[in-house]
Amino acid sequence: MLTVYSEKHALHNPRGELCGGELVVPFECPARVEHILQRVKKVALGDIIAPGNFGIEAVARVHDPAYVRFLESCWRQWSAAGYRGDAIATVWPARGMQQRIPEHIEGKLGYYALACETAITRGTWEAARASVDVALTAQAALRDGERAAFALCRPPGHHAAADLFGGYCFINNAAVATQAFIDQGAERVALLDVDFHHGNGSQAVFYDRSDIMFLSLHGDPKYAFPHFLGYADETGCGAGEGYNHNYPMGPGTCFSTWGEALADACRNIRNYAPDALVVSLGVDTFEHDPISFFRLTSEDFRRYGATIARLDLPTLFVMEGGYAVDEIGINAVNVLEGYEGR
Amino acid sequence: MLTVYSEKHALHNPRGELCGGELVVPFECPARVEHILQRVKKVALGDIIAPGNFGIEAVARVHDPAYVRFLESCWRQWSAAGYRGDAIATVWPARGMQQRIPEHIEGKLGYYALACETAITRGTWEAARASVDVALTAQAALRDGERAAFALCRPPGHHAAADLFGGYCFINNAAVATQAFIDQGAERVALLDVDFHHGNGSQAVFYDRSDIMFLSLHGDPKYAFPHFLGYADETGCGAGEGYNHNYPMGPGTCFSTWGEALADACRNIRNYAPDALVVSLGVDTFEHDPISFFRLTSEDFRRYGATIARLDLPTLFVMEGGYAVDEIGINAVNVLEGYEGR
Ligand SMILES: [Zn+2]
Ligand SMILES: [Zn+2]
Repeated sequence: MLTVYSEKHALHNPRGELCGGELVVPFECPARVEHILQRVKKVALGDIIAPGNFGIEAVARVHDPAYVRFLESCWRQWSAAGYRGDAIATVWPARGMQQRIPEHIEGKLGYYALACETAITRGTWEAARASVDVALTAQAALRDGERAAFALCRPPGHHAAADLFGGYCFINNAAVATQAFIDQGAERVALLDVDFHHGNGSQAVFYDRSDIMFLSLHGDPKYAFPHFLGYADETGCGAGEGYNHNYPMGPGTCFSTWGEALADACRNIRNYAPDALVVSLGVDTFEHDPISFFRLTSEDFRRYGATIARLDLPTLFVMEGGYAVDEIGINAVNVLEGYEGR
Repeated sequence: MLTVYSEKHALHNPRGELCGGELVVPFECPARVEHILQRVKKVALGDIIAPGNFGIEAVARVHDPAYVRFLESCWRQWSAAGYRGDAIATVWPARGMQQRIPEHIEGKLGYYALACETAITRGTWEAARASVDVALTAQAALRDGERAAFALCRPPGHHAAADLFGGYCFINNAAVATQAFIDQGAERVALLDVDFHHGNGSQAVFYDRSDIMFLSLHGDPKYAFPHFLGYADETGCGAGEGYNHNYPMGPGTCFSTWGEALADACRNIRNYAPDALVVSLGVDTFEHDPISFFRLTSEDFRRYGATIARLDLPTLFVMEGGYAVDEIGINAVNVLEGYEGR
């Protein structure tokens, strides 16, 4: 399987992450993708290529133009305001408040944020651009005939909505790639999110559409980030009604339960008969993940890779979360090896 | 003038405040009220008494019961979750997300927060209860015949809405005291907010009511916290239409401009002919305030105290913000001395 990777991910390296009332060493760190890259090499998964240079147009198909301009200019405005730390939101439009976009960067940050563990730094925009180019390059490989490809994206993307960042995400790589399939003529695409966390951004982007089915297996939002989306009764709206499937699961969920949810999601995907499948691949479902509460073992990742393969669809894997850094390479690549029947 | 003060304010003493991407020593610190107290004593403003013990009923007239339970239990739930820092929100219900209350304290914090510079600590609830008791004790003095009183509240309150905390505020002391006047038979009460920041909580609580007029002079939300409320076109709704007056002003505003806005606010108050006046007294309009952008001098505070006195109304001063700690005593008490014509 082809892997697409860019070393530019390392340009995004926040000094701290707000967690438990402290600024801690970020869980979402550059070492994550380096470990995965090493594992890809070790098992000789296939070719590893650098991304091409895609324009902003594909991004603009999913994200709000003003949001894109905000991401691009945030660090410049933040620095100009004289702040010494990374750009972190501190105030937001809460219940009953205005959804007007303030002039000051402090207000803009809060307007566009859904969480404040996620800092914007000097290199964030360039890294995020490279990350979506990774996804689009892998997607283009499928367009050109590859059966499967692995977009080793960082920063991840599935929490980013049309005009919201947070949960370590800025541009929704998987959503942009999914839209690219449609723009290239696909009639239906399924976006399956197996990250521990609900893919709130992806859901929001495609919520009113029938040409993209979104399915997410995740920690119940009552107990897990992002807390405010991902309930089972969110089934889509308008033309999208019935094309959104959430599988929230509680603390301690093992593969027996998780695998049943995946089987149900696969049934929905089969009935939908999409032209392609995009997998938001997070491996924070791992039993030893430091910020999650599922109990999948490394071997379970291989097993569900095989399950996804049985859908027999052109499949784009887009890297999302996973914070047990030492095992992240094994776990992520196990999915891909399972998919390949190795 | 009578001053009400409780030493319990010191029970709220967060380790850090998220500002500029860093956890800094909190601007809203215990020394603030101690400096004011010393100044009250130095100028012999009048008696200083401890608050009485008011029940939660007066608070519940303004705040949502579930929110009150959250404030009361937050630290216990946060500690039980094993976090090491103070309780700070990290994720919230952003645009398009659910307004359901999560089970996990991380989700609950985000649900009830409007900002994350404000930490909840072990002693926050007790301090906040004492603070509103300070306001209610001063209010009771007016009920019992005092012409004016000073509630030396900390933590402050005017950013707290019925079910939102943030901006250093938990219980809206001024709003609770204002409601107490109504509950004791007042037909109309004016709540004048002269803190640098818009009193978004107070506005929200009374927005649909004609028995309480809210007026706020503040930094334009386009440039200043809380960023998402405080625009001039927010004039009230329903029965409250026309009873909400915002005076947003830009960076560098001096007393010449600010005083004109106050004069207009006073005209509105006179026409309204309220039975009592509550003043949300923040002195972060001071020229050397570290987090604000108005340019009032210490002498200006005395001048506008006299302006408020000319309204000739029973007047309850409720302490809000002010972060130039060395001068906060002089500035706050200057308002009160100006009011008393000293
Ligand atoms: Zn995740
Ligand atoms: Zn203030």
